Amino acid sequence: MRKIEHIGIAVKDLEVSNVIFEKLFGAPAYKQEEVASEGVKTSFFRNGPNKIELLEATTPDSPIAKFIEKKGEGIHHIAFDVEDIVSEIARLKSEGFTVLNETPKRGADNKLVAFLHPKGTNGVLVELCQEILE
Amino acid sequence: MRKIEHIGIAVKDLEVSNVIFEKLFGAPAYKQEEVASEGVKTSFFRNGPNKIELLEATTPDSPIAKFIEKKGEGIHHIAFDVEDIVSEIARLKSEGFTVLNETPKRGADNKLVAFLHPKGTNGVLVELCQEILE
Repeated sequence: MRKIEHIGIAVKDLEVSNVIFEKLFGAPAYKQEEVASEGVKTSFFRNGPNKIELLEATTPDSPIAKFIEKKGEGIHHIAFDVEDIVSEIARLKSEGFTVLNETPKRGADNKLVAFLHPKGTNGVLVELCQEILE
Repeated sequence: MRKIEHIGIAVKDLEVSNVIFEKLFGAPAYKQEEVASEGVKTSFFRNGPNKIELLEATTPDSPIAKFIEKKGEGIHHIAFDVEDIVSEIARLKSEGFTVLNETPKRGADNKLVAFLHPKGTNGVLVELCQEILE
């Protein structure tokens, strides 16, 4: 794991939150993207070497809708940048972590991603992500 | 705001969590520190340009104890590195954010810190932190 790639924040209304985070960072989102397979639309803000991803649910059974229903708006996950997601998944499994996606899936922002079960990481939903080079 | 300085994670037992995060990052905490004024003991892990801070409450009325009681273990705050915390506080106040510490206070890891009220930031507790140069 080389750095925090991004922090994912669950929000109810992406347009409203885009304005808030533009004020926070002093610069607008550089990208908006819908990930239909995950039932979310997202926007991304740069912060030096890191990013902030805002996530709004697009379907009632989206993980983001369920998260907000249970916990309210707030930080949803931490994503770490990895060089080789397949070997990192194998390493973390051997350390006893529960990997929710043994085969990485395609996520937002041109990434291969996999999640760890938060029960093994003090309630923190950890995402591994590897840039897809094309 | 120049980068994510650290993510703060509220945990019940620092010793137990130190083992988990050592496995996650493949390296042990580089520092442990108690901040008596905040009622916490902390440990810090490096992750490239970023850090992870684990926080365990040392008193029942510590903000971390209250957080865990209400929400369980998990991500407690995001701290952003700022060059000049006084001017950043002024900028964010002028943008309409509620700054909880108008005068920065001394936090862990040799920092001046100030927090924004999470009601103005989609439920996210945002910390500003500036390295103290001595």
